[in-house]
Amino acid sequence: MLRLFPFNSTRFLSRGLKNTCSNSFQHKDLIIRKTEKRFPKPKNTADVPFGKIYSDHLLNVDWVEGKGWGKPEIRPFEGFQLHPAAKVLHSSLELFEGAKAYYGIDGKIRIFRPQLNMERMRRSAERCAFPDFDAKEAVKLLKELVKMDSDWVPRCAGSSLYLRPTMIGTEPTLGLAESKEVKLFMICSPVGQNYFKSEGTGVRLLADTSFVRSWPGGVGSYKMGCNYAPTIYVQQLAAKRDCHQVMWLQGKEQLVTEAGAMNLFMFWKNEQGEEELITAPLDTGLLLPGITRRSILELAREWGEFKVSERSFTMADVVKAIDENRVYEFFSSGTAAVVGGISEIQYVDRSIGVDRTLRLPTMASKHKVMQRMYDTITGIQYGRIQKDGWAEIVEL
Amino acid sequence: MLRLFPFNSTRFLSRGLKNTCSNSFQHKDLIIRKTEKRFPKPKNTADVPFGKIYSDHLLNVDWVEGKGWGKPEIRPFEGFQLHPAAKVLHSSLELFEGAKAYYGIDGKIRIFRPQLNMERMRRSAERCAFPDFDAKEAVKLLKELVKMDSDWVPRCAGSSLYLRPTMIGTEPTLGLAESKEVKLFMICSPVGQNYFKSEGTGVRLLADTSFVRSWPGGVGSYKMGCNYAPTIYVQQLAAKRDCHQVMWLQGKEQLVTEAGAMNLFMFWKNEQGEEELITAPLDTGLLLPGITRRSILELAREWGEFKVSERSFTMADVVKAIDENRVYEFFSSGTAAVVGGISEIQYVDRSIGVDRTLRLPTMASKHKVMQRMYDTITGIQYGRIQKDGWAEIVEL
Repeated sequence: MLRLFPFNSTRFLSRGLKNTCSNSFQHKDLIIRKTEKRFPKPKNTADVPFGKIYSDHLLNVDWVEGKGWGKPEIRPFEGFQLHPAAKVLHSSLELFEGAKAYYGIDGKIRIFRPQLNMERMRRSAERCAFPDFDAKEAVKLLKELVKMDSDWVPRCAGSSLYLRPTMIGTEPTLGLAESKEVKLFMICSPVGQNYFKSEGTGVRLLADTSFVRSWPGGVGSYKMGCNYAPTIYVQQLAAKRDCHQVMWLQGKEQLVTEAGAMNLFMFWKNEQGEEELITAPLDTGLLLPGITRRSILELAREWGEFKVSERSFTMADVVKAIDENRVYEFFSSGTAAVVGGISEIQYVDRSIGVDRTLRLPTMASKHKVMQRMYDTITGIQYGRIQKDGWAEIVEL
Repeated sequence: MLRLFPFNSTRFLSRGLKNTCSNSFQHKDLIIRKTEKRFPKPKNTADVPFGKIYSDHLLNVDWVEGKGWGKPEIRPFEGFQLHPAAKVLHSSLELFEGAKAYYGIDGKIRIFRPQLNMERMRRSAERCAFPDFDAKEAVKLLKELVKMDSDWVPRCAGSSLYLRPTMIGTEPTLGLAESKEVKLFMICSPVGQNYFKSEGTGVRLLADTSFVRSWPGGVGSYKMGCNYAPTIYVQQLAAKRDCHQVMWLQGKEQLVTEAGAMNLFMFWKNEQGEEELITAPLDTGLLLPGITRRSILELAREWGEFKVSERSFTMADVVKAIDENRVYEFFSSGTAAVVGGISEIQYVDRSIGVDRTLRLPTMASKHKVMQRMYDTITGIQYGRIQKDGWAEIVEL
């Protein structure tokens, strides 16, 4: 497979290879300006939809070419005044991260592996021609923000405070060039339990080969805003077919890549008769290097109970395995939903007149790989399970 | 070639096929709020760089799901208050257009084919899951804005007032979904003569196969902001090699597509010994349907002096033709620069160790196809040449 993608564009990037950045903003410079009017909090977070309510404060730090980073500031949550020609509004110079803070059974607040988010953010920033920063300093600032709005971390089981670090190009010029002014900000949003309204019955995916999310030589492996705009229209087509999400296939081979907001895993009996947990590899540059994805792979390898593979697999592999009853579980992973069982794939290939509904036995699986992953990861997130370095406590 | 791209995603879209939209904003509802403090104008527009100065007013019209379009308003140029979770800042729900107003030799102000911009904008809006509007009403509003700021249309030869209609998703929610709030705005920027600082000597392009702009099943044929963010980093690599722009190749075949801000034309003697003006076709969905591109094709077909082709051609075709001295002119087309002669292509294919500088005789061509195109199109734009429907006069 790999020879089809000889140019993994990641090899041109250097950030994340080195761990420090000498010209970063610094946590020690943090300015805090407390709000005077606090927003009302939702009564029952379990029912709060994803990303619609925000906490009292945000973190902001601006960068200007020649001057460097300014002082980070935690300030009342309010709108930004943006110039109508700001680059983010025209050439999509923007990137984001997604993390979560959890209220643990011991009353402590934890963020799940935030250092990985900030390292990924540096990598996205390089591809966006944005300035570098020190990931450790960014994590400290994120923790300060969560500390400031700690009463926004829902106490309700399964709920959490979603954290959205973002960078945007704010220079007010229309030419196609790098942004000489950049804003980094972080906002917090309390979220309920279910990213999808599909609890128990599983998620349905539309895999329509007419639409392609990423490609060799593109930016599919960076968390840049530009990867998402083209998916909304296709998402609407999926919704018309009563699907929750799109499953993105790539190339003539119809490689299984990811689901836009989530990575994809299959637990199956492979062609060699082995039990295997498989997910698409990162070296193609076609999919986002998810932090939940990485955590699942690390846990599965620690368990050592079955084969764990990061390698390309195709829609044909999936169809054949379903037809031969060799697929046990097919599930997604991501910060928003942790893991989500997939119950159905609507596979559409207009070039050969295929429109087929594939049913998956995920929700009834006796192997419970997905369920154990969910229990382990949420266990770490809510402090029921200890795992060194995976859950950073926010000191209050 | 075409069988490689059986799924031109344009076929799923309907806007632009029908000419009207019953739920549009209306020019008759226009509200005008004049500025009280006017900005200083540049003394000599010829030296003004692209997209850095803006006129006194902007046009704004907002849409909300369920309510529809509000009343369009021309108002003092000022920043927007945007919610930090506005969809445009996270999932790049944004698109734009580029047009120009010209001060003619007869003292009249003309906009070049604005109806085509607005039809293209409707098409981009559909792909962004944005609401539809009536292109004719949008043209009327654009003209009103130019009329309001008519003293910003530079009098200086070769200069013009660049017009930037834009749509952004403003709904303040983080979920990956369509924006239930949308802002359409138009801003104006006086611009000098030269988009590139290369007058006379020609533009140099970097064609590096490691980076790919668009792909079958993607949105390369829509003027969405998301197409541009991934190009900035590559543009910086090009600048390091003293190139002005990137020439984007696609696929294993290395199809010549476009140059990011511009379409590409080659005037050559083809393999059959015919003089031919060739440009990449639109039905692959890989390139932007430029209005200058379309105008050049229409003019060339009217002239009837040589073969005019919209068909795929490859980098190998170009290299072979250069080696056999069959390329007469290679040039770009776009609103910003009209046409721009290309003097050099730095062709890099790391997979086979190629790094070759290809020199093009464009600037010394005796055929002067590009020069005649420039003279004709700018002649129409500045009122020296009459061509029905190509230059809409702004009534003052």
